[in-house]
Amino acid sequence: MSEVIESRLSELGITLPQAASPAANYVAYVATGNLLFVSGQLPMENGKVAVTGLVGADVDLASAQRAAELCAINILAQAKAALDGDLGRITRVVKLNGFVASAPGFIEQHLVINGASNLIANVLGAPGKHARAAVGMAALPFNAAVEIDAVLEIAL
Amino acid sequence: MSEVIESRLSELGITLPQAASPAANYVAYVATGNLLFVSGQLPMENGKVAVTGLVGADVDLASAQRAAELCAINILAQAKAALDGDLGRITRVVKLNGFVASAPGFIEQHLVINGASNLIANVLGAPGKHARAAVGMAALPFNAAVEIDAVLEIAL
Amino acid sequence: MSEVIESRLSELGITLPQAASPAANYVAYVATGNLLFVSGQLPMENGKVAVTGLVGADVDLASAQRAAELCAINILAQAKAALDGDLGRITRVVKLNGFVASAPGFIEQHLVINGASNLIANVLGAPGKHARAAVGMAALPFNAAVEIDAVLEIAL
Repeated sequence: MSEVIESRLSELGITLPQAASPAANYVAYVATGNLLFVSGQLPMENGKVAVTGLVGADVDLASAQRAAELCAINILAQAKAALDGDLGRITRVVKLNGFVASAPGFIEQHLVINGASNLIANVLGAPGKHARAAVGMAALPFNAAVEIDAVLEIAL
Repeated sequence: MSEVIESRLSELGITLPQAASPAANYVAYVATGNLLFVSGQLPMENGKVAVTGLVGADVDLASAQRAAELCAINILAQAKAALDGDLGRITRVVKLNGFVASAPGFIEQHLVINGASNLIANVLGAPGKHARAAVGMAALPFNAAVEIDAVLEIAL
Repeated sequence: MSEVIESRLSELGITLPQAASPAANYVAYVATGNLLFVSGQLPMENGKVAVTGLVGADVDLASAQRAAELCAINILAQAKAALDGDLGRITRVVKLNGFVASAPGFIEQHLVINGASNLIANVLGAPGKHARAAVGMAALPFNAAVEIDAVLEIAL
């Protein structure tokens, strides 16, 4: 399982970063039973927030979708850390909550979060099909354009 | 169980629509253990978003409450599809997250989401008593006035 | 366990209020399996919302962090009511969702929610280390500056 997923990541040109640890009094993920709750991930790339500003004003749709992809990549990186390196232990992506920093009048949050949904489905296959919500925020930490958190079902 | 619920729906004049399938790489619900996570539902009626705009500016409180009711009806429609038509298998509505597209200064998100809470409680009775959050958004997909997602406890 | 937690509350000068019951058709918490979902809590103190307005305009960072602390205190009060008074039955704080009413350009939602994360960690110790999301809202019910909901793992 894990080899197939790692192959897909390679084919898609995706290198998972080192999972970042929060700098405050919380953690990047918590497992309870066979659910893994992953903290809200920002579009981090090379250690910094790669896409900033309000979508629909400072950030165009393509850049916002790229931000959502980066959030998804960071979710996978956190899951890999939680699962001792074995992404094959993700039995199902249960839910993604997609938060899009939105300029007044921007109403395509669903198209933005498709960037994450497509990446997760492409990398994980059938277990990657998830429920989700996509909503528009006034602003996000560090001026990030997108933040996404996740609930995953995992094999113990 | 199911008959009682269907009777209440009839008495309230509610016809559940066909559950809509997302047009993108995600699904309307995911079951894990005995939890059912339902994707964010918009106020769809007859196949389109029935209530659009920012509550407190374009949309008044009564219309926003109607939007929340429609979101709740669509949650029930998705649950019915997930549960092979048997809403009696909902043992508890665990959580509703209510997202209200809010004009500056609109601070009655709780009253808006009461539209959904009342409908769910009226239709499902005691199992319909849920935890919830109600918050104000900058904007929502397709300019929807309200979006609501849900976690349900279900009998397997 | 519970005595240690109650001692820490005392040392920190925190008195948990009576858990407030919602005035509408929903409840303050729902337990399913060993998960406890707590409704979104506002910064209530002495029966009213203590910190109101948009953070970054009406509310400064220190006041917003105090609001987040009050939300966390109310989460603990609800959990105590749910657990027959025994906070030692919280085996893990799984997730906090922190919603910050944000003026345009305010991008330190993470620092605001640290107020809650620090308090939970200080009171509960290791079981208090949680996953979280921190996001910026257009507005919140009753003009609250912060709202936080929670998922807790509990001993049955």
